[in-house]
Amino acid sequence: MPDVRICEMGPRDGLQSLPKDRLVPTEAKVALIEALAACGLDFIEAGSFVSRRAVPQLADSDELLDKLQKRAGVDYAALVPNMKNYARFQGSGFTTVAIFVSASEAYSQFNTRQSIEESMAAAGEVAAAARTDGYGLRAHLSAAFQDIDGGDSDLKIVVDLARRLLELGCDHVALADTKGTTDPRRTRAVLEAVDRGVGLERMTVHFHDSYGMGLANSLVSYECGLRLFDTSIGGIGGTPFKALANGPGGGGNVTTEELVYMFERMGVSTGVDFDGLLQAAEIVKEIVAETGGPPPPSKMLR
Amino acid sequence: MPDVRICEMGPRDGLQSLPKDRLVPTEAKVALIEALAACGLDFIEAGSFVSRRAVPQLADSDELLDKLQKRAGVDYAALVPNMKNYARFQGSGFTTVAIFVSASEAYSQFNTRQSIEESMAAAGEVAAAARTDGYGLRAHLSAAFQDIDGGDSDLKIVVDLARRLLELGCDHVALADTKGTTDPRRTRAVLEAVDRGVGLERMTVHFHDSYGMGLANSLVSYECGLRLFDTSIGGIGGTPFKALANGPGGGGNVTTEELVYMFERMGVSTGVDFDGLLQAAEIVKEIVAETGGPPPPSKMLR
Repeated sequence: MPDVRICEMGPRDGLQSLPKDRLVPTEAKVALIEALAACGLDFIEAGSFVSRRAVPQLADSDELLDKLQKRAGVDYAALVPNMKNYARFQGSGFTTVAIFVSASEAYSQFNTRQSIEESMAAAGEVAAAARTDGYGLRAHLSAAFQDIDGGDSDLKIVVDLARRLLELGCDHVALADTKGTTDPRRTRAVLEAVDRGVGLERMTVHFHDSYGMGLANSLVSYECGLRLFDTSIGGIGGTPFKALANGPGGGGNVTTEELVYMFERMGVSTGVDFDGLLQAAEIVKEIVAETGGPPPPSKMLR
Repeated sequence: MPDVRICEMGPRDGLQSLPKDRLVPTEAKVALIEALAACGLDFIEAGSFVSRRAVPQLADSDELLDKLQKRAGVDYAALVPNMKNYARFQGSGFTTVAIFVSASEAYSQFNTRQSIEESMAAAGEVAAAARTDGYGLRAHLSAAFQDIDGGDSDLKIVVDLARRLLELGCDHVALADTKGTTDPRRTRAVLEAVDRGVGLERMTVHFHDSYGMGLANSLVSYECGLRLFDTSIGGIGGTPFKALANGPGGGGNVTTEELVYMFERMGVSTGVDFDGLLQAAEIVKEIVAETGGPPPPSKMLR
């Protein structure tokens, strides 16, 4: 068993944010996802069953898995906001349902036009169905470190939601820094509070890298005892709405190849083949270039 | 007094690595350096009295300071390899001499065609003259964390050279990760050894960010008790020779605005005005674009 496990977000969190006028061909996604699985990544989030109009880059989620050579032991996850879209998920071949709620009322309204409790209710229905049907289950808990105005999140809400998401049967709960402003001190404070409340065993961290602090925050998380990390190949994706950045910070996620490189050099095993990862990063670079988007943030691709 | 002090390397370490065929105009450098000093950076390395042919982007170091509105309390530093070039330095208006040696025989030969002891002898002459003449003095100790083949540096050599450089009268000694491969665990080991040997009070760290670990390494350095940090506006510069990268890592230095942002959010004061820093970063972006170089690594500029 590797020391840490990486949840690869690029095919979903990354691709969703590419320019909407030049769609990434399904075949290119297939090549990317197969390359990621081939290098040992065993959790790959790659689909989104939300409005095809809102997220056109993932509108082919229904047929993506059919075209893919699935690899045994790999979880293929897709976002499912409610039961209406759960029906789409069921026919898709994805193996893990990803539900999402926010620890911020403001962000919950902004992202889903629902209150936290309304989206928890919808997520709860999906979770129950997913468990009954034997799918894997994960949750994204956005704005877990800071609110979208840059103020601190409410740790009581964060811990309470984490607990309720675990009670729904989630295999892991991603504590997300949606705006990308959490710093190592704040990261430590949040993880220590979550650790006291529900433990960190089934927690993962999802740091948007708007200001470059992603790897530093990942290091602190590891020191806090956390062992699951959401990252994105090439570093693509990140803060989902320009309006959220509200400052100089750019997009970007913690870059899979940078996290793997750092951990492996530290003697922390990831189970991921680094050379294979670089090949997957090159695929991402081509995909992004085809859409006319800015080059991926990854230092390895410079 | 701020909690940490930043040594700005961009106008030297950054500009020297820009494409050699389109030289940055002296006026653009003046605008950049004045902007950096205006936001509170009080150590700015901006010149290099080495062969003008080897480093054409800094060939105007002799007249740069004459054209600059110097600010009281700011150290303006320039590299000076030997006494021949010290004469050039003396007439230039720079206030601080930066000498440089390497903890790696291989890199010493590669960079200066001298052994470590030969370059220590040359640096010692310059240091003595600088002290006699009342200039500030700093040293760069390259390959202090890892050798250029990626193996670990020899800590006995590192500590011994750090001690000898301090004995020469250096105000600070920059422990440089020339290749950019040190990781948080190795960084801690090196700083603990240096701390045991000579203390960290007059040490600064100079992390090339080839693989994205720069901020994480800076955080670890702070935790080790270090309070001086070499950074570069926009993140420009970094590993000086393509041959050194010898892998997927790109260039780049720890980015001044990213380090300042992280520390200030952590409650660690830097004494630097962040908004002013972003304006300076925009100047760098323009400078780099004019030379046809790739965009600066800074997340804030994306």
